[in-house]
Amino acid sequence: MNSDAKKQALRQITYGLYIVTSQSGDMVVAGTVNWLSQASFDPPLVMMGAKADSGLHTAMGNSGVCAINFLSADQQDVAQDFFKPTNVDGNKINGHAFTTGSTGSPILDDVYAYLECKVSDNVALGDHTVFVAEVVDAGHRREDKPLEMWPTNWFYGG
Amino acid sequence: MNSDAKKQALRQITYGLYIVTSQSGDMVVAGTVNWLSQASFDPPLVMMGAKADSGLHTAMGNSGVCAINFLSADQQDVAQDFFKPTNVDGNKINGHAFTTGSTGSPILDDVYAYLECKVSDNVALGDHTVFVAEVVDAGHRREDKPLEMWPTNWFYGG
Repeated sequence: MNSDAKKQALRQITYGLYIVTSQSGDMVVAGTVNWLSQASFDPPLVMMGAKADSGLHTAMGNSGVCAINFLSADQQDVAQDFFKPTNVDGNKINGHAFTTGSTGSPILDDVYAYLECKVSDNVALGDHTVFVAEVVDAGHRREDKPLEMWPTNWFYGG
Repeated sequence: MNSDAKKQALRQITYGLYIVTSQSGDMVVAGTVNWLSQASFDPPLVMMGAKADSGLHTAMGNSGVCAINFLSADQQDVAQDFFKPTNVDGNKINGHAFTTGSTGSPILDDVYAYLECKVSDNVALGDHTVFVAEVVDAGHRREDKPLEMWPTNWFYGG
């Protein structure tokens, strides 16, 4: 396999950008994720890739729950804030106010939609684990346009 | 859970559109897929959701291989051609010439990039199965812009 062709072809996959959160005991984690897709209508499942050595992986693995926070197209700065390590200060994570959802996962106040999920299964074969999770709660606060990855000129793939 | 909020939130996920092909014995299948993402750098893994009662699911399940064909932004008509049942006529699938890749999976002549994959594992919990597959071959024939789902106004999710 030509490793450059592999990298270039993998970089043709289209992504959005999401803040995925999870709480396990006192451990609250939030991180920007792009490897995420729906995976079933009935039951409603999503699949996501979480870095095996990340706090998000630990929290999701231990708690079995997460929330997917949908950023709007004008919230690229929020996505950037969650590239940093998680810092909880009062009711703010990395400077953004949150409330706790029905699964115990943090939901950011300033996102226009969210999903709460329970992990159903996982596949741990690579440097990221595939979590397959069922959607158990959801909110759609207003109409908006989602943050896509192409306009940011960021890459996470290849 | 509010089912309308669940549907609307799931429809905020950003997708591309890909033609995924597989050959198992005499059975050649090609279909348009959007539930697809990278899932690991090392080894290079992808994850995709394939409808449990589809020919693509049968062929991938039996052969353990597939190819992901990347359409460019001006090939929406090609994506539409692969919503139809697969029809192989000589060296054409649904009217599009192909050659057989190193895994035995069809690669369309007019795509600008492709990945060939071997299925590593799957999670069969819903109306679609999550296939986790390792990238074993790849081609990047030219620079181009990928076909994204938002501009098509099609939906597959919710």
